[in-house]
Amino acid sequence: MINRIGNYTLEFTDKPIIAGFGSIVGKKESEGPLKEYFDKIEYDTRFGQESWEKAESMFQKEALYLALKRAGFELKECNCIFAGDLLNQCISSGYAMRDYGVPYLGQYGACSTMAQGMAMASVFVESGAAITAAALTSSHFCSAERQYRYPLEYGGQRAQTAQWTVTGSGCVILTSSKKAAGNNNASVSRVTIGKIIDMGIKDAANMGAAMAPAAADTIKCFFDDTNTRPEEYDAIFTGDLGLVGTKLLYELLERENIDITKIHKDCGLLIFDDKTQDTHSGGSGCGCSASVLCSYILKNMQAGKLRKILFVATGALMSPTASLQGESIPSIAHLVEIGI
Amino acid sequence: MINRIGNYTLEFTDKPIIAGFGSIVGKKESEGPLKEYFDKIEYDTRFGQESWEKAESMFQKEALYLALKRAGFELKECNCIFAGDLLNQCISSGYAMRDYGVPYLGQYGACSTMAQGMAMASVFVESGAAITAAALTSSHFCSAERQYRYPLEYGGQRAQTAQWTVTGSGCVILTSSKKAAGNNNASVSRVTIGKIIDMGIKDAANMGAAMAPAAADTIKCFFDDTNTRPEEYDAIFTGDLGLVGTKLLYELLERENIDITKIHKDCGLLIFDDKTQDTHSGGSGCGCSASVLCSYILKNMQAGKLRKILFVATGALMSPTASLQGESIPSIAHLVEIGI
Repeated sequence: MINRIGNYTLEFTDKPIIAGFGSIVGKKESEGPLKEYFDKIEYDTRFGQESWEKAESMFQKEALYLALKRAGFELKECNCIFAGDLLNQCISSGYAMRDYGVPYLGQYGACSTMAQGMAMASVFVESGAAITAAALTSSHFCSAERQYRYPLEYGGQRAQTAQWTVTGSGCVILTSSKKAAGNNNASVSRVTIGKIIDMGIKDAANMGAAMAPAAADTIKCFFDDTNTRPEEYDAIFTGDLGLVGTKLLYELLERENIDITKIHKDCGLLIFDDKTQDTHSGGSGCGCSASVLCSYILKNMQAGKLRKILFVATGALMSPTASLQGESIPSIAHLVEIGI
Repeated sequence: MINRIGNYTLEFTDKPIIAGFGSIVGKKESEGPLKEYFDKIEYDTRFGQESWEKAESMFQKEALYLALKRAGFELKECNCIFAGDLLNQCISSGYAMRDYGVPYLGQYGACSTMAQGMAMASVFVESGAAITAAALTSSHFCSAERQYRYPLEYGGQRAQTAQWTVTGSGCVILTSSKKAAGNNNASVSRVTIGKIIDMGIKDAANMGAAMAPAAADTIKCFFDDTNTRPEEYDAIFTGDLGLVGTKLLYELLERENIDITKIHKDCGLLIFDDKTQDTHSGGSGCGCSASVLCSYILKNMQAGKLRKILFVATGALMSPTASLQGESIPSIAHLVEIGI
């Protein structure tokens, strides 16, 4: 059953089970602090394809394969896939889905896509609209750079506030199927759907600043709606606020008397080591929070090191067209409460 | 309660009520056969804004306003908005949502977005995840042409198979609230979620051909899942197959012994009169099926002229980047059964 709690939060009494999860990342990500946690590393930036865009589709297919494999599920058991990505027309997802014949609902939430897809899949599973559903997303440094910023060949200097788009993909399989119960699986207990927040940031090289207010808003809404406190959680993971955005998040939440500093981690800061990898403000992209969730976070939950966490994926809905027209960057954050 | 029927169809026992709907279109659409049905005409292509993209956002805001007004609902009663559009990063929707503070879940289904959004909103309302939810989408001839084809100033010749992107927006308010019951409102009884179908069409000036197989697949799945026949419906509306796609749809369904020719109408063929409006194969765009649903179709249902219909919005997930890389056009169609 789904209960509406407060204004923005949904509670699942049966708690959709995370039957499986899978992660795959590129070479640079494999050289970072989380290297041992990823299921698979792909060293070829093109993944044997003719273009980076086609390669990104392959990352999604691989993450879906790995997640189904870990779950012990077949593709045909999946009633519905919620997928999306950063590329125009979400082509990484659309083309990945082409060979599968599985009902597909394309999601657009920029880097918040993993949490959005999990929220949707959880509602579908909890309500019986699906027995099993997948949430899937990806990003690719090369395809994102040339679409959002400059051709790589241009060799542009990156600002210190800029983040490095993660090449990678993550997939979660959510289910109500009994065969996934009792297997030391985590489950989704609550979600908070975010709102578009835009505080006027126009610098496309400072997405962390654009997204921090959205993360702060969603986190505050969750604590208000559920009457909980940060101390009740082992960790709160934001998606890809990076160094700049994380600092801003702390400031914004401090004004609301919410202190998450002791238990907060940002996926964008976990995945790279700026000192040795020159990634500046941290990692970003849909694939950042997705691959960290589907490796470090969920593996630590299964290992008993984390029992109850909040996963808050943050998206900057930045459009080069709108930016050229003088627009600021609207942002959004969706929250998923996961327990084991 | 939501029942899964067959492989792809969801049945709603409580049937989310269409409490309100709203439509707004541009000048060219107001000169077509459906002119008397639209709620509002905007004669200024720029809607008083500096760009067509910003204008398209205004169309969405107006459609949402009109739908809420007809429903007698306030914006704050809306628990969730499902919106999406054709522009990169779905900016028409993202920027439209910026001022509202309502939970937002961005959808990407190209021209299938209206049916996708209604399917999602119906699942949310039926499951209690929302009391009231909106499905909203738009398209704009000028913003679509320059993003997907050529700058308007180029004055390119249009192929006879090409369709004309509708400038317009439609919004539906779905609810389980008792205050909407008994008001001669239609409701959603079943939905079928589509799969990506790609038969290898590469011609971006022939989207109807790309989408027809997806429409045929979803329609066949619905009839198989529900054990119903076309004769049981007053009408089956496809989104924007146009002349070419409609002909192909009939051929594909004939092979499956399904004859919908007597009751089929295509929103893309309803909205324009090619003889006087030079629109070639018909209208297209998210705003095409959305504005026709939220005017002609739902007004005819309220007037008792249509009692039970299928609304099958069709989307060609065409990407200029993928097309330049030699890719074909993946398509999808989602189906919504509406009764009164």
